[in-house]
Amino acid sequence: MRNSDMILSLDTVSLDDEGGAVVIIDQTKLPGEAALMRLQTPEQLFDAIKRLCVRGAPAIGVAAAFGLYLAAKKLDTSDFDEFRREVLKTGEYLRSARPTAVNLSWALSRMERRLCASCSADQAKAALLSESNDIFSEDIRVCRAIGEHSLTLLSPGDGILTHCNAGRLATIRYGTATSVMYLGHERGYGLRIFADETRPLLQGARLTAFELKSAGIDVTLICDGMAATVMKSGLINAVFVGCDRVAANGDAANKIGTLSVAIAAKRYGIPFYVCAPTSTLDLEIKTGSGIVIEERDAEEVTDMWYRGRMAPDGVKVFNPAFDVTDSDLITAIITEHGVARPPFDAALRGMIEKTRIERV
Amino acid sequence: MRNSDMILSLDTVSLDDEGGAVVIIDQTKLPGEAALMRLQTPEQLFDAIKRLCVRGAPAIGVAAAFGLYLAAKKLDTSDFDEFRREVLKTGEYLRSARPTAVNLSWALSRMERRLCASCSADQAKAALLSESNDIFSEDIRVCRAIGEHSLTLLSPGDGILTHCNAGRLATIRYGTATSVMYLGHERGYGLRIFADETRPLLQGARLTAFELKSAGIDVTLICDGMAATVMKSGLINAVFVGCDRVAANGDAANKIGTLSVAIAAKRYGIPFYVCAPTSTLDLEIKTGSGIVIEERDAEEVTDMWYRGRMAPDGVKVFNPAFDVTDSDLITAIITEHGVARPPFDAALRGMIEKTRIERV
Repeated sequence: MRNSDMILSLDTVSLDDEGGAVVIIDQTKLPGEAALMRLQTPEQLFDAIKRLCVRGAPAIGVAAAFGLYLAAKKLDTSDFDEFRREVLKTGEYLRSARPTAVNLSWALSRMERRLCASCSADQAKAALLSESNDIFSEDIRVCRAIGEHSLTLLSPGDGILTHCNAGRLATIRYGTATSVMYLGHERGYGLRIFADETRPLLQGARLTAFELKSAGIDVTLICDGMAATVMKSGLINAVFVGCDRVAANGDAANKIGTLSVAIAAKRYGIPFYVCAPTSTLDLEIKTGSGIVIEERDAEEVTDMWYRGRMAPDGVKVFNPAFDVTDSDLITAIITEHGVARPPFDAALRGMIEKTRIERV
Repeated sequence: MRNSDMILSLDTVSLDDEGGAVVIIDQTKLPGEAALMRLQTPEQLFDAIKRLCVRGAPAIGVAAAFGLYLAAKKLDTSDFDEFRREVLKTGEYLRSARPTAVNLSWALSRMERRLCASCSADQAKAALLSESNDIFSEDIRVCRAIGEHSLTLLSPGDGILTHCNAGRLATIRYGTATSVMYLGHERGYGLRIFADETRPLLQGARLTAFELKSAGIDVTLICDGMAATVMKSGLINAVFVGCDRVAANGDAANKIGTLSVAIAAKRYGIPFYVCAPTSTLDLEIKTGSGIVIEERDAEEVTDMWYRGRMAPDGVKVFNPAFDVTDSDLITAIITEHGVARPPFDAALRGMIEKTRIERV
């Protein structure tokens, strides 16, 4: 087993409380290099999120929660008002690292509620540690549950297409869209996975193909523009993707290129499933048009990864990091509580309600 | 003006009869490096076609015609039967370099008809020179005519999306899909072009964005997975693409990823135009399912261009070089004789008929 395969035995994000660091697998280096990063300050964490060293909506949420706890732990003041103000400021700062994924904001809000319900800095520190650990272990349970529900939608031997990495590297373990692949593998389903490479940052090639292949799962890498022809040729029985934010009507923001896959799946009558922990549901936003789409540097398209010049100097580039798949293209949204089908408004409200009941 | 811009003042393919070489712009090096290649043997030409140093259905056709002429010219025999056999053998060899583009076979067939109508080696050599020059100059006229017909479908200020490079670098001058962009630019239309980068070989980034930007045309580079979101946002009024082979029913083979673009265009009500010299119409093939699709090496997806490892070692890859866009997704097929609309069977037969009449 190579060094970079071995790194997959670790959690994507973890807390080294004694060392005072959030420990992450540096995903910008995979699959060529297996490196861990120890993030000790909010600035280091912000930078790691911004540069996608840690990415994937659920993983970002966990990393931010651990990071906020560590920042709070290091504050040395007995004035609780000042303590609270400082922690809230750090929370706002971390929240601004990436605008599209709601989990980042969701995890920080959970942390901030615990902070504000505390009466002293010491009590708050303990509460923040407990809450961040909860967010961490919930992620593992939630991903596994999404996989179980997803598996009810498949038959042995099915072909599945996925886009980007909604894999274990986007969460703590299992992944969201890949959870069904890992569970199917455990149970001898013999699923055949097609992974879109996912330009410009190649999360499909670098991360999804890598983690599935390392697990011994049958995976075939394709370029994004090949997905339609693979569907047309009858190789695909279902599409499973993750998401960064789902609006109340079911419109789902996910990695750029997802919309294209969904449109093609509709044409070929292939079910298109969005795997969404309830933490990615944002019912305050009515439709996808309300979701802020992050635009990233031209250099990601024109230069990153390359040996030579692959585009003319100074060419204009449009580089949105996400797109919004309209809910009429989505067959079902799979959360940890089950499979939500249209009309999504009511179904998604039901999912959130189940989370509330569970927490009581 | 940079060296690589200057190379665009040359024809993509030309004949150096004195030097006994087909001279091409080496397209594997663009846009970083401007290099010409002098191809003196059928083997060198075969290799240049195979490795895409010269690519684009029309340009391949011209290069093969010049190459066959040069091979014939160098034959030193007075036995015409032997001469003919040798030339036909070279034609078969060149024909096998790439299976999908019909122009290669079309150009070689034109040459072979002239060969077989000749009575001596000397007469045949003259006929082959004349025929290859005709194919060369027809290509320029045909591309310009396609641009004129295409321009009738646009309004000033329109946004156009294109995939791969059906540009001047795929032909001798003007291009097929880009011809309308060059003519629109000459006439002050202020068109806004969006160019798909076109993985895996990046012909959109390396060639289309390069040649349009060099010509001063407003071009924005996007990744293939962004085309749907650009269409959805209302920036695109029409899609223009080239093609490698069109079946009798209008199904069109073109660079992988074209099908995806066509499906998205249909969803957003954007006209999808295929620019096809009549030399790419293959009415002997009834539908697209009869078109042979070339599969290429995994390494084009996993390694080419990159500095480091972007995919796990030994991962399975599916790398079809083309896909077939079903004719129900195509608004019109634009040839040098005009705009063919559905039902395509009759319209395309009419286009071929016009070519026959013209030749008489």
